Amino acid sequence: MLNQLCLCAQIKSLNELRYTPAGLPVLTMWLTHESWQMELQQRFLAKMEIQAKALGDLAAHWPYQPGSMVEITGFLSQKGIYHSRPVLHIQQIREYKG
Amino acid sequence: MLNQLCLCAQIKSLNELRYTPAGLPVLTMWLTHESWQMELQQRFLAKMEIQAKALGDLAAHWPYQPGSMVEITGFLSQKGIYHSRPVLHIQQIREYKG
Repeated sequence: MLNQLCLCAQIKSLNELRYTPAGLPVLTMWLTHESWQMELQQRFLAKMEIQAKALGDLAAHWPYQPGSMVEITGFLSQKGIYHSRPVLHIQQIREYKG
Repeated sequence: MLNQLCLCAQIKSLNELRYTPAGLPVLTMWLTHESWQMELQQRFLAKMEIQAKALGDLAAHWPYQPGSMVEITGFLSQKGIYHSRPVLHIQQIREYKG
């Protein structure tokens, strides 16, 4: 079932790289987004902060610094059993060059 | 700048139709989503509840009842100045037939 977010965003902050008990590298971060979207033929300023998560090699060899603009494709899932806020699980990422 | 979510979800609850001061119909709702996604070649159970919003004719002539499965395309924006949680602004919706 469909669950795909394509988002151009700025990396606001990166947390320390951590490892799961199974040894998987995990990097979490906050992204900020601001864009003009169309809603009922009017321009609407969409603004958002969202947490994102990279796993594995992408997390271990993370090439983007805070302030970088990136284009991400991924899926949303709640942060945890007791945290229903959605987190973006990064599947593809590249630098945004405008 | 890119901000597009494609989501298949179930309508959990619908709020009462309301109108903005300018007379625009607004319908807000909660959606639930559950799907298997691929993450590092493993299956991951993505689960989420997210608020969504329809405006205008779509809100005024809303055809879906709680329990309906729908496929939505839209963009994310924070709920308000003091509520940073993302809300899905519905641009396209259709019944999900599996």
